[in-house]
Amino acid sequence: MSILVVGSVALDSIETPFGNRKEILGGSATFFSISASFFDKVNIIATVGEDFPKKHLRMLKNRGIDTSGVAINKGKTFRWEGRYEYDMNVAHTLATHLNVFQDFAPEIPHALRNSSVLFLANIDPDLQDRVLRQVNKPKLIACDSMNHWITNKKQSLEKFLHKVDIFLLNDAEARQFSGESNLMKAAKAITSMGPKSVVIKKGEHGVIYYSKKGHFVAPAYPLENVYDPTGAGDTFAGGVIGYLSRAGKMNDAVIRKGIIYGSIMASFAVEDFSVNRLLNTKLSDINKRYSDFKKLTHF
Amino acid sequence: MSILVVGSVALDSIETPFGNRKEILGGSATFFSISASFFDKVNIIATVGEDFPKKHLRMLKNRGIDTSGVAINKGKTFRWEGRYEYDMNVAHTLATHLNVFQDFAPEIPHALRNSSVLFLANIDPDLQDRVLRQVNKPKLIACDSMNHWITNKKQSLEKFLHKVDIFLLNDAEARQFSGESNLMKAAKAITSMGPKSVVIKKGEHGVIYYSKKGHFVAPAYPLENVYDPTGAGDTFAGGVIGYLSRAGKMNDAVIRKGIIYGSIMASFAVEDFSVNRLLNTKLSDINKRYSDFKKLTHF
Repeated sequence: MSILVVGSVALDSIETPFGNRKEILGGSATFFSISASFFDKVNIIATVGEDFPKKHLRMLKNRGIDTSGVAINKGKTFRWEGRYEYDMNVAHTLATHLNVFQDFAPEIPHALRNSSVLFLANIDPDLQDRVLRQVNKPKLIACDSMNHWITNKKQSLEKFLHKVDIFLLNDAEARQFSGESNLMKAAKAITSMGPKSVVIKKGEHGVIYYSKKGHFVAPAYPLENVYDPTGAGDTFAGGVIGYLSRAGKMNDAVIRKGIIYGSIMASFAVEDFSVNRLLNTKLSDINKRYSDFKKLTHF
Repeated sequence: MSILVVGSVALDSIETPFGNRKEILGGSATFFSISASFFDKVNIIATVGEDFPKKHLRMLKNRGIDTSGVAINKGKTFRWEGRYEYDMNVAHTLATHLNVFQDFAPEIPHALRNSSVLFLANIDPDLQDRVLRQVNKPKLIACDSMNHWITNKKQSLEKFLHKVDIFLLNDAEARQFSGESNLMKAAKAITSMGPKSVVIKKGEHGVIYYSKKGHFVAPAYPLENVYDPTGAGDTFAGGVIGYLSRAGKMNDAVIRKGIIYGSIMASFAVEDFSVNRLLNTKLSDINKRYSDFKKLTHF
């Protein structure tokens, strides 16, 4: 099948205990698409400013990712500045400059309106819905969100989620959205609010998958070196959705494998800044970690 | 085989968002022994004061636990007062009254000096060593510790750990003991400091097992209702060590199963205050959760 991702392409400035980087490639659609490109064909819908380095677009194209939907608009590219302490599960935002992303009003080119798999990264739920209405009956609809939309656009988000097959969000967002501190209760509450299933991302603590049909829990792939967790959630989503798209079907066994592939993709993403480690990852590395993951968790 | 556990028997006063309880049965040896008693024969070495309710000792005896090593000493029983917020991974100590536990100087009765499995719960590492020297070549030696001993008796602890097969500690203690914030690095560092293997307990986030021969990671058994996490770590240890004792051997497959049984025992412990839920647990409940755990984590 082919995947359409709608989200951000950004320039990040990151501080971690292991070093700082300025204006490195980031954005939800970036991490998602590189991750998913290991499994299936990906098309990006996003916006960047005139200042966006062309080399990044070339790199995406060279990986077989269709960037024809990345609009280069007058103005500056979306920038995010963040810091992590030793507890890498928590990102401290230092500055957000939306720039051209402020006026992001995604129009899906006609050629992409028959995409079979749709991933709506963390954008305004009204925009997520607007995109969805432009696509002809996708077979799989997945989305992410964030605290900002849960606080300010909860009604829109709730309405939109009724159309969604897989809603991915992190543990803090799941608690906020459901009002439940216990994550199993939160997962149950969220699935009763519309989406067919929910994936709660717990960072280094793994993941909970919850649907009316069944549940799945997995630890994260254990790592000794975590340099920069930026983009881990979108990379995870890229692995999950990429694997499901390639499998061409969605059943319990396929979802479980997809979640493990997502976890493995995220494990590579955090081992270096930006998408550096992902770009140096081979299919054989992914398969090796998949096999290691089986050995690590089997009982 | 038969298990000898040396640790505390206490009266706890607990505050949680779900209710408060005063002077309920607690203590590391209590939780450990009840948990392990589902798997094998257990003997407790501990001390209580003259005020200790006899009904608790009767309850332990009725479960087949040998309490002949529980000394009733002049004075009051060890008391701990603690509070949990919604984040149940963190215990806030309100008060600790060591009372008779202050002078705990365990003497192992001759009849128990041939115990094949030894669990040294969280006590002064010098006492742990003193106990170990009284037992004739146990086949399996496991121990716990805590931040207090890591801070104040690190040298004693390090020396003692060279004799230990399985060192169980929680994530914060592992970070403190190793000086590593990353838990895989911490586990690696700790196994290089003496013990044959280390089990890092991450509460609701599961567990990491690390030895030179191999690693195992497992999520916690997912629960919707957690009322009181007190004793979860010792209950976990009781399940692990109980299972290993019953199996009569220690290899990779047996350790993995033991860790899952430990996680399941802990999942019962936290569903009510004190040992209440454990006392209402049947072997069939344990086996049901074991089978559920397989289904929940299989991929």
